[in-house]
Amino acid sequence: MQNIQHQMMGYDRAITMFSPEGRLLQVEYAKKTVKQGSTAIGITCKEGVLLLTDKRVVDKLIVPDAIEKIFQIDDHVMATGAGIMPDARVLIERAQVKAQQHRVTYDSPIDTLTVIKDLSAIMQMTTQSGGLRPFGVSLLVAGIDKAGISLYQTDPVGVYYEYKACVIGEKDSEVEEMLAKEYNYDRSMDETLKFGLSIMKRGLGEEFDAARVDCSIITLKDKTMKRISSQKIAELLKQAR
Amino acid sequence: MQNIQHQMMGYDRAITMFSPEGRLLQVEYAKKTVKQGSTAIGITCKEGVLLLTDKRVVDKLIVPDAIEKIFQIDDHVMATGAGIMPDARVLIERAQVKAQQHRVTYDSPIDTLTVIKDLSAIMQMTTQSGGLRPFGVSLLVAGIDKAGISLYQTDPVGVYYEYKACVIGEKDSEVEEMLAKEYNYDRSMDETLKFGLSIMKRGLGEEFDAARVDCSIITLKDKTMKRISSQKIAELLKQAR
Amino acid sequence: MQNIQHQMMGYDRAITMFSPEGRLLQVEYAKKTVKQGSTAIGITCKEGVLLLTDKRVVDKLIVPDAIEKIFQIDDHVMATGAGIMPDARVLIERAQVKAQQHRVTYDSPIDTLTVIKDLSAIMQMTTQSGGLRPFGVSLLVAGIDKAGISLYQTDPVGVYYEYKACVIGEKDSEVEEMLAKEYNYDRSMDETLKFGLSIMKRGLGEEFDAARVDCSIITLKDKTMKRISSQKIAELLKQAR
Amino acid sequence: MQNIQHQMMGYDRAITMFSPEGRLLQVEYAKKTVKQGSTAIGITCKEGVLLLTDKRVVDKLIVPDAIEKIFQIDDHVMATGAGIMPDARVLIERAQVKAQQHRVTYDSPIDTLTVIKDLSAIMQMTTQSGGLRPFGVSLLVAGIDKAGISLYQTDPVGVYYEYKACVIGEKDSEVEEMLAKEYNYDRSMDETLKFGLSIMKRGLGEEFDAARVDCSIITLKDKTMKRISSQKIAELLKQAR
Amino acid sequence: MQNIQHQMMGYDRAITMFSPEGRLLQVEYAKKTVKQGSTAIGITCKEGVLLLTDKRVVDKLIVPDAIEKIFQIDDHVMATGAGIMPDARVLIERAQVKAQQHRVTYDSPIDTLTVIKDLSAIMQMTTQSGGLRPFGVSLLVAGIDKAGISLYQTDPVGVYYEYKACVIGEKDSEVEEMLAKEYNYDRSMDETLKFGLSIMKRGLGEEFDAARVDCSIITLKDKTMKRISSQKIAELLKQAR
Amino acid sequence: MQNIQHQMMGYDRAITMFSPEGRLLQVEYAKKTVKQGSTAIGITCKEGVLLLTDKRVVDKLIVPDAIEKIFQIDDHVMATGAGIMPDARVLIERAQVKAQQHRVTYDSPIDTLTVIKDLSAIMQMTTQSGGLRPFGVSLLVAGIDKAGISLYQTDPVGVYYEYKACVIGEKDSEVEEMLAKEYNYDRSMDETLKFGLSIMKRGLGEEFDAARVDCSIITLKDKTMKRISSQKIAELLKQAR
Amino acid sequence: MQNIQHQMMGYDRAITMFSPEGRLLQVEYAKKTVKQGSTAIGITCKEGVLLLTDKRVVDKLIVPDAIEKIFQIDDHVMATGAGIMPDARVLIERAQVKAQQHRVTYDSPIDTLTVIKDLSAIMQMTTQSGGLRPFGVSLLVAGIDKAGISLYQTDPVGVYYEYKACVIGEKDSEVEEMLAKEYNYDRSMDETLKFGLSIMKRGLGEEFDAARVDCSIITLKDKTMKRISSQKIAELLKQAR
Repeated sequence: MQNIQHQMMGYDRAITMFSPEGRLLQVEYAKKTVKQGSTAIGITCKEGVLLLTDKRVVDKLIVPDAIEKIFQIDDHVMATGAGIMPDARVLIERAQVKAQQHRVTYDSPIDTLTVIKDLSAIMQMTTQSGGLRPFGVSLLVAGIDKAGISLYQTDPVGVYYEYKACVIGEKDSEVEEMLAKEYNYDRSMDETLKFGLSIMKRGLGEEFDAARVDCSIITLKDKTMKRISSQKIAELLKQAR
Repeated sequence: MQNIQHQMMGYDRAITMFSPEGRLLQVEYAKKTVKQGSTAIGITCKEGVLLLTDKRVVDKLIVPDAIEKIFQIDDHVMATGAGIMPDARVLIERAQVKAQQHRVTYDSPIDTLTVIKDLSAIMQMTTQSGGLRPFGVSLLVAGIDKAGISLYQTDPVGVYYEYKACVIGEKDSEVEEMLAKEYNYDRSMDETLKFGLSIMKRGLGEEFDAARVDCSIITLKDKTMKRISSQKIAELLKQAR
Repeated sequence: MQNIQHQMMGYDRAITMFSPEGRLLQVEYAKKTVKQGSTAIGITCKEGVLLLTDKRVVDKLIVPDAIEKIFQIDDHVMATGAGIMPDARVLIERAQVKAQQHRVTYDSPIDTLTVIKDLSAIMQMTTQSGGLRPFGVSLLVAGIDKAGISLYQTDPVGVYYEYKACVIGEKDSEVEEMLAKEYNYDRSMDETLKFGLSIMKRGLGEEFDAARVDCSIITLKDKTMKRISSQKIAELLKQAR
Repeated sequence: MQNIQHQMMGYDRAITMFSPEGRLLQVEYAKKTVKQGSTAIGITCKEGVLLLTDKRVVDKLIVPDAIEKIFQIDDHVMATGAGIMPDARVLIERAQVKAQQHRVTYDSPIDTLTVIKDLSAIMQMTTQSGGLRPFGVSLLVAGIDKAGISLYQTDPVGVYYEYKACVIGEKDSEVEEMLAKEYNYDRSMDETLKFGLSIMKRGLGEEFDAARVDCSIITLKDKTMKRISSQKIAELLKQAR
Repeated sequence: MQNIQHQMMGYDRAITMFSPEGRLLQVEYAKKTVKQGSTAIGITCKEGVLLLTDKRVVDKLIVPDAIEKIFQIDDHVMATGAGIMPDARVLIERAQVKAQQHRVTYDSPIDTLTVIKDLSAIMQMTTQSGGLRPFGVSLLVAGIDKAGISLYQTDPVGVYYEYKACVIGEKDSEVEEMLAKEYNYDRSMDETLKFGLSIMKRGLGEEFDAARVDCSIITLKDKTMKRISSQKIAELLKQAR
Repeated sequence: MQNIQHQMMGYDRAITMFSPEGRLLQVEYAKKTVKQGSTAIGITCKEGVLLLTDKRVVDKLIVPDAIEKIFQIDDHVMATGAGIMPDARVLIERAQVKAQQHRVTYDSPIDTLTVIKDLSAIMQMTTQSGGLRPFGVSLLVAGIDKAGISLYQTDPVGVYYEYKACVIGEKDSEVEEMLAKEYNYDRSMDETLKFGLSIMKRGLGEEFDAARVDCSIITLKDKTMKRISSQKIAELLKQAR
Repeated sequence: MQNIQHQMMGYDRAITMFSPEGRLLQVEYAKKTVKQGSTAIGITCKEGVLLLTDKRVVDKLIVPDAIEKIFQIDDHVMATGAGIMPDARVLIERAQVKAQQHRVTYDSPIDTLTVIKDLSAIMQMTTQSGGLRPFGVSLLVAGIDKAGISLYQTDPVGVYYEYKACVIGEKDSEVEEMLAKEYNYDRSMDETLKFGLSIMKRGLGEEFDAARVDCSIITLKDKTMKRISSQKIAELLKQAR
């Protein structure tokens, strides 16, 4: 009720403004965009970390293999997003450039935390200064560096947390509940892949389509991002309950 | 209903703003411009890729041969658009410059994917930063490079997908349905040309006019864009059902 | 009806905005300015191309010979406009500079198509980026270059077409109808001049005044713009029906 | 009626905008400012050209000789204006600088037409780009150059015409009518001065005050602007009817 | 009535805009600020020129000698203002710098007219371009140079006139009337001082306070601004009627 | 009443605008901020000048000694403010830099008047040009230089006066009245301190708290700002009535 | 009531504006954001200073050790915040850079006061100039330098105070009351840690979760920030009442 009044009074139509309750409404609306985005799941385990997303391709004439929803930032860091994908690309491309610059400048790979800090700083900036709308996307960034395996999630304001496992986008509450109940760090990567596919299948329900799944992993063994083939995904799905 | 309220409250009159549901209304309106644009079809086949558009010339004193709706970006990449054609030209000219720069800098032809990524980045930018309205155009970009034959479609937000065959502009749903049913990758280029002309003819119905068709192809054989003469088009139309 | 609502909701008061139907209203209003401008006709024939305009001088103390409504862009290219004439001058002066630069840079005369492409790009720009209203003028650009005789028309959005013959400004539908019926490319330049004067006379009706006509031609013979003297115009008018 | 509606809808409160009828309302209002300015008359004759203005000084303690309403742009070019005089000064000072630069760059005096073209370009610019309101002034520019005697009038949009004789400001319709009826190019400069004073006297009626008249001429003989002394004006007025 | 309507329609809330009658309302409001400013009088006589202002100090703990309302621009030029005094200071400081630069560049003192022309140009600028409100001040500038004794008044639009004697600020109409009736150029400076004090006293009535008067003169004899001591002012007031 | 109308019409919501009565409303509101600030008193006497302020600390866990409300600009110049203290700090820091630059550039200490003139110029600027709100603070600047002892007060528009004694902030009218009645220049510094504390105590009434008083002096003897210890203040308060 | 009227009149929707009562409403709303932030407590004692915050992690899959809510600015200075944490990060990162620059430039560690002054200046700036919304965060900055132990708190306007002990964020009044009653400077660091944990536990009530507490100290002994391990926190909590 009060919300409707504040909308009528324009507090949500200027990005760089607080509502009388101290809220940034434009940012809250951007989060709704994220909620409507396609599901993306990240899970860490003792052997590494995986990202799992729904490509959400509905047109049969689209070439599904050509759709990447998981992006390589550097050999050892990858990311995906939910929300406005062109917004995600802007952020990912920035991270890729930063990672490259890091290698050139310091002769060593970038930390996963440095990647997420830089992305969050950009996202914060669009919520404070005029001229740019907030990014309509949340990101999952996963990597393995000297500090070990890590998985971060950032939202449109630039708030980020490290997670053991998390989900963004459509059906996030359903999947979150399953993650909370069934997650176990001490699984192998193969078991974790099966677990991830299983909760995505159960979370999306009838909407789930094996052909639409994009999945990549980084393992402690070789610390390099690898795409899981659709063949392997189909196989794992059979094994998963 | 809710939509009308939000229009009255101005969410759709500032480009860089989310509506309370997390939508970018200006971008949705731009997509309507595209829907009203003239029909453009792209089809890949085992021998190459074709673009087919309706020039939509209504004035008899216009010189139809002088109208190009399919533009060469480089020898091996071409594009067309639906919507505000001067907007399309801005994008195409940028792509042409990028392609030329690529040849000079890397001494090799540009990838089709690099072209579409750059165009999508520009389109995304106009939906996030102030000072420029979103582009009122969708593009089809087709090319043959080391990665093979490819056909991309991008919309005003900068979302792009690779397609086997697709359509934008007027009567897109009618043509899409025919594409979905009748498309076959394993046709020769000549058969594909006939197929394309046939679905355009059936899609546009009474509005169809052979003299208004612009058509270009790139084949695996010589990897160079070639305009199909109006003579050839007339001939193929006779053969097509 | 819907139109009035959208006007009241402000879609037409910000240049860089789409209306909910995907229209750019400011540009549509600019086109109305063109419709109210003085009539300008362009006609090609086998011997060359002519531009014909109404100077629309109403004050007897104005020096009519001093009014130029047809401007030379280079020896072989000329242009006229309908709408806000100071807007036309801005565009024409830009074209004159471009033509001069072309001669200096490439040591060859500019193509007519290059002229129209550059003008259209500027016109498009004012409809997309803030800070400048759209140009309130349409242009006819006529020239003879290596590609032969050509006549282009551009509107305030930057859409352009090549025409065999066309008309802009006041009474455009009346004149257009006559052009469509009576136009013949295979006339001599003298016959074409008579034809042009005839349809202008019939189109403007009582408003027509021979003393107010400005007319220039470029012929294949010498490829150089020539003003037709008021004497010659009077003479031709007598011969014309 | 429709006008009032459009005023209420704000079409006239943003400079760089068209009204739904394709009009630039801010420019139309600026023209009203001109109409309320003090009367200025320009007249050419076989011996040269004169400018004549009402200084409109109402306070007796103002030093009338110190008021210049006719400004020298160069030896052979002069100008006056009606409307907001500080706006006129901005334009005149620009013209003075341009004239000086011309002498330095080309070692020859500037053409009258070049002066008016440059001023009109500036005036057009303020009606198209934001950040500056249109100039609230019309100018009369008179000069003698290689092309002979000329007199130009420009309005706030930057439209200009060459005139044999013209009037701007207060009582323009009354004076215009007299000019149309009684003007004769073949008068001597002295007769033309008497004619000009006579129509100003008759036009302004009771408001006319010989002491408030500012008058300057340029003759073919010496091609240099000369102010007519108030003594001479008084004398000529006695001779004029 | 119409005025109130136009206020409600916003014509007076954007600096760079004309009202439908062709008026610049923000400038008219700025003039009201001037009318409410403290009275300032300028008078020329055969021996020189004086400026006379009311310091309008109401707090007894203010150090009245420390208040300068008449400012030296150069030895031979001085100025005062009515309205927003910090606005006046901005203008005066600019004039001081210009005068200093003139001495350095041309090795000669600046003309009074050059000073007023530069100030008026700045004032005009704030009424045409956005980003700065108009100056809320009118100035009196008095000086003696090669051209002799002069006294100028400029208003917020940048209109200026040379005066024999004039008044700005509070009670301007009362003082103006007295000036018109009683002014005489052929007085000595001492008689002119008495005259000035007398009309200020009579004009301000009960508000007049000898201790609040600031007065400076420049005489032909030494062409240098001199402050009149409060002692001298008291003495002259006794002699004045 | 008229005030409320003008508020509803927006005259007070754009900084660089005059209301129809010629007022700058945003500046008037800024003055209200000053009125609500904590009380600050300045008093000159034959031996020097003092500044006295209420630190207005309400939280017992605040370290009162750490609060400075009187700032040293240079050895011989100090300042305090009432209103938004972070605004005051911006101004004071600028003055400190200016004072330092003066010493470096001219090898001599800055004048108190130069300090206040520079601060006032900045304050005026924020009331005329867009992009910055007016400063919500009034300052007292006190110093001893070659010209002797001086005390200045400036308001948010940049109007400044020299005072013998003055007060800004909360309870200013009560304190002002006492100052007007009881002020005496010919007191010693000690007597002036007692006088100052006395009127602050009486002015603030129950709100007065000796521990919250900040006090500094500059005496003719050593021309250097000295903070009065809280011990000394307590002592003086006992002696004061 | 008046508040609601002013909200409807837009005084709170432009950052750089005063309301008619002289308030900056946007800043007041930013303070509400702070109130809703997670609790942060700072306490000084004879042995050093501690910061204590609630990490407020609600999702069990978040890696709590990875969350830092207390940031090291330099060895001897640390900070935490309540409100929008990405805003806090922007400020903290700036302070870290400033501290580093100080070491390089002056070869000595930065003062705690210099850190807080710089942060406050930035926060003030966003409340005066357009283009950036005010920071939605309050900071606690604690450090030990030559001047000894210090603890500062700054709010969104840039007002800062030195405190012996203070609290920001959720439940601030409850904790403040306990601090006022039970605070004692003469405790050891261990006793102060127990005291801090005790009042946080009592303040947050059921929301308190030992695992969510972040705590760091700086002691006089080694003047270096140290994080208190969760083990140690658990231990201290047992000992605390």
